[in-house]
Amino acid sequence: MIAGPRGNMGREAVKLVQREENMQLTGVIDYKFGGMTMQETETMEPLQIPVYETLDEAAENKPDVLIDLTNPETGKKHLRRALELGIRPVVGTTGFTDDDINVLSELAEEKELGAVIAPNFAIGAILLMKLSVMAAKYMPNVEIIEQHHDRKLDAPSGTAMKTAQMISAVRPAGSQGHPDEEEAWQGARGADYEGMKVHSVRLPGRVAHQEVIFGGEGQTLTIRHDSLNRASFMPGVKMAVEHVTVSAGLVYGLENLID
Amino acid sequence: MIAGPRGNMGREAVKLVQREENMQLTGVIDYKFGGMTMQETETMEPLQIPVYETLDEAAENKPDVLIDLTNPETGKKHLRRALELGIRPVVGTTGFTDDDINVLSELAEEKELGAVIAPNFAIGAILLMKLSVMAAKYMPNVEIIEQHHDRKLDAPSGTAMKTAQMISAVRPAGSQGHPDEEEAWQGARGADYEGMKVHSVRLPGRVAHQEVIFGGEGQTLTIRHDSLNRASFMPGVKMAVEHVTVSAGLVYGLENLID
Amino acid sequence: MIAGPRGNMGREAVKLVQREENMQLTGVIDYKFGGMTMQETETMEPLQIPVYETLDEAAENKPDVLIDLTNPETGKKHLRRALELGIRPVVGTTGFTDDDINVLSELAEEKELGAVIAPNFAIGAILLMKLSVMAAKYMPNVEIIEQHHDRKLDAPSGTAMKTAQMISAVRPAGSQGHPDEEEAWQGARGADYEGMKVHSVRLPGRVAHQEVIFGGEGQTLTIRHDSLNRASFMPGVKMAVEHVTVSAGLVYGLENLID
Amino acid sequence: MIAGPRGNMGREAVKLVQREENMQLTGVIDYKFGGMTMQETETMEPLQIPVYETLDEAAENKPDVLIDLTNPETGKKHLRRALELGIRPVVGTTGFTDDDINVLSELAEEKELGAVIAPNFAIGAILLMKLSVMAAKYMPNVEIIEQHHDRKLDAPSGTAMKTAQMISAVRPAGSQGHPDEEEAWQGARGADYEGMKVHSVRLPGRVAHQEVIFGGEGQTLTIRHDSLNRASFMPGVKMAVEHVTVSAGLVYGLENLID
Repeated sequence: MIAGPRGNMGREAVKLVQREENMQLTGVIDYKFGGMTMQETETMEPLQIPVYETLDEAAENKPDVLIDLTNPETGKKHLRRALELGIRPVVGTTGFTDDDINVLSELAEEKELGAVIAPNFAIGAILLMKLSVMAAKYMPNVEIIEQHHDRKLDAPSGTAMKTAQMISAVRPAGSQGHPDEEEAWQGARGADYEGMKVHSVRLPGRVAHQEVIFGGEGQTLTIRHDSLNRASFMPGVKMAVEHVTVSAGLVYGLENLID
Repeated sequence: MIAGPRGNMGREAVKLVQREENMQLTGVIDYKFGGMTMQETETMEPLQIPVYETLDEAAENKPDVLIDLTNPETGKKHLRRALELGIRPVVGTTGFTDDDINVLSELAEEKELGAVIAPNFAIGAILLMKLSVMAAKYMPNVEIIEQHHDRKLDAPSGTAMKTAQMISAVRPAGSQGHPDEEEAWQGARGADYEGMKVHSVRLPGRVAHQEVIFGGEGQTLTIRHDSLNRASFMPGVKMAVEHVTVSAGLVYGLENLID
Repeated sequence: MIAGPRGNMGREAVKLVQREENMQLTGVIDYKFGGMTMQETETMEPLQIPVYETLDEAAENKPDVLIDLTNPETGKKHLRRALELGIRPVVGTTGFTDDDINVLSELAEEKELGAVIAPNFAIGAILLMKLSVMAAKYMPNVEIIEQHHDRKLDAPSGTAMKTAQMISAVRPAGSQGHPDEEEAWQGARGADYEGMKVHSVRLPGRVAHQEVIFGGEGQTLTIRHDSLNRASFMPGVKMAVEHVTVSAGLVYGLENLID
Repeated sequence: MIAGPRGNMGREAVKLVQREENMQLTGVIDYKFGGMTMQETETMEPLQIPVYETLDEAAENKPDVLIDLTNPETGKKHLRRALELGIRPVVGTTGFTDDDINVLSELAEEKELGAVIAPNFAIGAILLMKLSVMAAKYMPNVEIIEQHHDRKLDAPSGTAMKTAQMISAVRPAGSQGHPDEEEAWQGARGADYEGMKVHSVRLPGRVAHQEVIFGGEGQTLTIRHDSLNRASFMPGVKMAVEHVTVSAGLVYGLENLID
């Protein structure tokens, strides 16, 4: 069962489920087209698969897994309700507080159902962060350069900020570069996060790229992720779906499925 | 105690031990200058530190750790003899067979002494290999590009071959690229190792560089190591020295000290 | 006037002409839908613009410029006929012989009309080649690495081969690397073109990328082009259209419009 | 004749002149060791070549070319005096005003002697700047990332600033990125120079690197220079020496010797 089938991620997820041999699409949830088939909506894939208005209606169909790619508010409601209905949820939205996670975690364990919340499904980005944390233990001089298309509003990117935060948990805070270094042109040395510098490039022709550079005496190690489109999220969705079907309890963050 | 103090690595190791507060250089072993001080040799650092002809003579000085940066034959002898003499060995040479390692491993445990054999001390290269193995589990389409100076004789580099071998242990063998792909110019697609392609670039201005590229739908992950000089090996030597002083038993390969 | 409006390039060209203030789309040529409007075809942009079966019919509309993005055979015919009809042609196909170019060149001069044949409209790729030739004069040690998606059949890419050929015109032929170098794994050193090595990477997640690396003592210069989609060809189409409207004579290759 | 033979650049220049078949080292100028041979100084190469205290004394030896690698003040004096003495000067120092250059230019033409002032001899860096200016004409969205060792005091590097200035001469000023873009972490978007962003990375393990990235719709072009040591300056010195021996007049900047 897929909630949010008209979004970019949702469309890719529909394709994913159709492509995978051991998955079957039993229905989609879309408040606007409840009661139709996907084909009848004329905006979804032309499939003879039912569209439900709500999760409760969709539950009649007895899906094993709910893939929710809606928005923070709906995602949170769906996660709780899915567990109550005995459906294993994979939720790709943000906005969960620590309290939310504790409560939902208990519910998942009580119901003995697997559940995954993944603010980021890009397995390459997850690997980038996870491997960066490992490398930072041994090479604590770090700078991050992220590059995105020039229509992006915020700098640094969310992934760059999260990477810096994750690295700072294993790296002693402390400024890098020469103590007396001076910026002849202000901002040249980038943003500072506990001594690590973060640089944001915005150019047409870029999509979503990040590199983390670790410097040591006589050597550097660089980990780089290049993401071109939403298709890059599907291996992560698949990994989460496979996980919830064989485990019980809530996992927050795809990085915790990677060892 | 440092064996091989006149080699490139040995010279760097002498500097390392002098620089580190919790290490002290008690002597060096050099068959050619036994009985002199380092200064008197006129080819080593001008230090008032004794040069010993053999490890047995050096043992009088009761060193805690032997750093051996000689050659395979001497390294193997020194490792065994150091353990017998109650000295913890860190040996940076190759040429140990599985049998050697088993025998020496037992000896280290019997003597309750830490010991490390490290064919490669470059912590960045070790990280590159270790992280590559982790990434390959999730992104099994892999190609390796290594770049070295144009005086290098062999292609691919030893590190590239070892990386490919380590990755192949976790990656299902299978060819990559289009099944009907054709080389208009022979060799364009590089060397093949169980379906992975390996490319070797040789140019003046390069030193020692390697990147491992992992491709997935809509994304790539790249891990790159750039090494400029022998100084890049010293953090690995330091890590090994610190390890042997607090543990018992033999470790083969610096990658096993990284978690 | 655009010939080939249903191809990938043609679709982008239709968008380009609509977007540009000083261009106006007077019609398209498509043998299959002659007599309809673009909208009526149901496969083109929904515009009230006429579709012509042939260039001769299209000429009634008195277009200034014909953008031909069809195929080698049609492109060649259209180029000649456009000049005869007093229309300035911009043709993006390959397959012209030296004789063709000489004959068409004379015709363009006789008619005092500008004309451009561009086998490659990607201005970044053109710049890559042009700048590489300049750099090779001063740094003649060169290797090329091109990376493409893993559905590509041929290696090296056409652009890589053309780049190597263009560089070889200014670079003394001669092998690079150590004269006694040996491939432990066959193919590692890539394809050889007059001593330059060319390497082809094929991975999912890549689109079309090329880097040319120039090595010198203690330094390297790298020129890299990353192309993500057909939109990257449009600045080149625009440049060619602007050129033909203000000049007379035939230009073969967009590189000759760049100084 | 080489002035400044004890500096890093000077030492490399001595090696260069000895290595080149069509150059001959007639002497060096060093105020501290006048009257000795190079060998007798015990700090220079052990050569039986005279050291002169001043350029006037050195002139007795009738050198064709003076390579000056001293400091701005001495470099300026030497340039003028060399021309007066009929010696062709190649000066690698900064600090010349426009007036200086005009006056010295006239003198060089009057004496019919070639002369070169080169604030930067790294031919790769010169090419980087020159090619960047060419590319910017066609792809005016530009960002610069330079990376240096972490003992560097100033950011951005001189080369990065000069590159931005040279590009701005051909690129319409104008800000890049989204007009409403916001820095969540201040400085993330780097330094601004007429709308172009410049980013400075400082890490151990880096030496001197710069990349200029040009973005266009669906594509990027990147030009990168990596410099590892002073040897990278010698091809530029050689080019300047060869130029002054066959031409008359003053050239400021090696980029003017490259076409």
